[in-house]
Amino acid sequence: MAMNVLGYAAQSAKAALVPYRFYRREPRADDVVIEILYCGVCHSDLHHVQNDWGRSTYPLVPGHEIIGRVTAVGPEVTRFKAGDRVGVGCLVDSCRPCSACGQGLEQYCEELPTLTYDDKDRHDGMPTFGGYSERIVVSDRFVLRIPDALDLEGAAPLLCAGITTWSPLRHWKVGKGSKVAVVGLGGLGHMALKLASTLGANVTLFTRSPGKEQDARCLGADRVVLSTDEAQMASVKGEFDLIIDTVPYAHDLNPYMPTLALSGTLVLVGYLGPLEPAVNSVPMIMGRKAVAGSVIGGLPETQELLDFCGEHGIVSDVEVIRIQDINAAYERMLRSDVKYRFVIDMASLKA
Amino acid sequence: MAMNVLGYAAQSAKAALVPYRFYRREPRADDVVIEILYCGVCHSDLHHVQNDWGRSTYPLVPGHEIIGRVTAVGPEVTRFKAGDRVGVGCLVDSCRPCSACGQGLEQYCEELPTLTYDDKDRHDGMPTFGGYSERIVVSDRFVLRIPDALDLEGAAPLLCAGITTWSPLRHWKVGKGSKVAVVGLGGLGHMALKLASTLGANVTLFTRSPGKEQDARCLGADRVVLSTDEAQMASVKGEFDLIIDTVPYAHDLNPYMPTLALSGTLVLVGYLGPLEPAVNSVPMIMGRKAVAGSVIGGLPETQELLDFCGEHGIVSDVEVIRIQDINAAYERMLRSDVKYRFVIDMASLKA
Ligand SMILES: [Zn+2]
Ligand SMILES: [Zn+2]
Ligand SMILES: [Zn+2]
Ligand SMILES: [Zn+2]
Repeated sequence: MAMNVLGYAAQSAKAALVPYRFYRREPRADDVVIEILYCGVCHSDLHHVQNDWGRSTYPLVPGHEIIGRVTAVGPEVTRFKAGDRVGVGCLVDSCRPCSACGQGLEQYCEELPTLTYDDKDRHDGMPTFGGYSERIVVSDRFVLRIPDALDLEGAAPLLCAGITTWSPLRHWKVGKGSKVAVVGLGGLGHMALKLASTLGANVTLFTRSPGKEQDARCLGADRVVLSTDEAQMASVKGEFDLIIDTVPYAHDLNPYMPTLALSGTLVLVGYLGPLEPAVNSVPMIMGRKAVAGSVIGGLPETQELLDFCGEHGIVSDVEVIRIQDINAAYERMLRSDVKYRFVIDMASLKA
Repeated sequence: MAMNVLGYAAQSAKAALVPYRFYRREPRADDVVIEILYCGVCHSDLHHVQNDWGRSTYPLVPGHEIIGRVTAVGPEVTRFKAGDRVGVGCLVDSCRPCSACGQGLEQYCEELPTLTYDDKDRHDGMPTFGGYSERIVVSDRFVLRIPDALDLEGAAPLLCAGITTWSPLRHWKVGKGSKVAVVGLGGLGHMALKLASTLGANVTLFTRSPGKEQDARCLGADRVVLSTDEAQMASVKGEFDLIIDTVPYAHDLNPYMPTLALSGTLVLVGYLGPLEPAVNSVPMIMGRKAVAGSVIGGLPETQELLDFCGEHGIVSDVEVIRIQDINAAYERMLRSDVKYRFVIDMASLKA
């Protein structure tokens, strides 16, 4: 039977989030039913709520950094049982037979993956609703194990902010001896520092705001470079094998290109849109440098990340809030006034 | 003793090339003295002559697709002897100790390599003069062996057009089963078709001009796609592991990005300048795609290319001209009226 579930939803683009009751589907044979304990608050939650990309459907229940406990499983589910600590990230389904799905890169599914919220289930056409809610029902392939060593609230952001930076670190083979730079110190940036440094890389933070030195070092940065300071920028000419650019708005990439090493790559993980001002091809051609993009990660690499974090005791730095405070949290997030991720304690929903 | 040499030079940016006498240095211990037999005519010869990049120094003797015969060697030279068939490409020197030079990637020398013409020798500060001349004196590291199997006139363009496309084909590991597209069918494009197809790739030509189908197929293309035809562009969505973009002027990259496969790269080898109109990051992020640049190649990979071409009987399609016809050839090159490279028979200089 379909389940009546309480969550928080935006009813339109301009509206604050308010309590909202909706149905979760009756579990299918491969489904896992999860009681949600924590849900991280991602920038893209706000983009969806505000209809910034022009494709939102309301009512809209955000949330794709979901941590919970299994309460029931469908008859075909073998990997999970009631009581397991699990997570759900940005994806809840994909086509499965395509080449990308076959490689475990469901985020690049050729038929497009099904998003955790603000999307439609590919079997019954019903809208998908996210983690700002009591419960979720998800096909087992898209459910992740949370290692016992991890705090649940700090683990939530690993499911989006964490994997978004982990996937390029792995794809571009960052390890001991690599030189990595991170642009921007927010939810994504602070995870990039932790993960790159734990992988053994020498890590630099590029920032436009002075005064982040100490925080950045605590998070794993070996060096902080003020990107507005030409002398500091010149001092890192030709340094970096990989730059992970987490900035979520249009910004000039040209000052960063000379800081790439020969054959280095600047990978955008935060900004969707035209690259303006125009990127000059001269430093690209004269140093075999690349500008690339990357989005979240596939299920196998997300599990790999969680296991890596379990092994090394890495979680996100979070500020836990009640669901009733979500609208105020959005306002603070807009001002970057959070170190470094809000996570909703879903127990507050019962208050 | 310094040698008095006849060549053709531009005396200023607006001037036609005219006969010009100048000195070549007395050979140093590591120098090879080469009698020039053929010299290819590259687009960048014209850019230098016309001062398109604003850095030209006159008199300017162009030419960096040089084929010749060794007439003498310095006492430290062991790899060459009088009578050897040799080539010289775009570079005649580099710093040597830097990391790029150490990897045989002299084109990316951290101290900047010394260009074959329109540059200054890094030891004596004298201007460098190119291959539109009787003789050249070059440090042995920058001299290449021409396999006996190759026609000398067809081999000349391998030293710039050939290596410029070979280097990215090798760096991005093109081989059997790879899907490669080439944008533009000129000197670079026709070499890219030949080399990629001989490496075993499935090769597509993107062109804006109908009617190139038959020529492209003869050069190794499996398919020709009219880039102005939306239906044809849609038919190759998600196809290519590597796109080699040889277009030498600003052009819109956005139509090509969706034709890249997951994790594919579009590499610019012809255009230096701002990427306008702006490249949209959405298809990059949603498919882990990259825009990169690449310039010519290092000495070891240039020798590798020449040996590969010797083994597979690959040369450039050329139209041999007399040095007296160089100014007319530039005019035809500007109209893309050449299949696919002019090569000067330097014997004409004695006429
Ligand atoms: Zn997110
Ligand atoms: Zn798929
Ligand atoms: Zn050239
Ligand atoms: Zn060097």
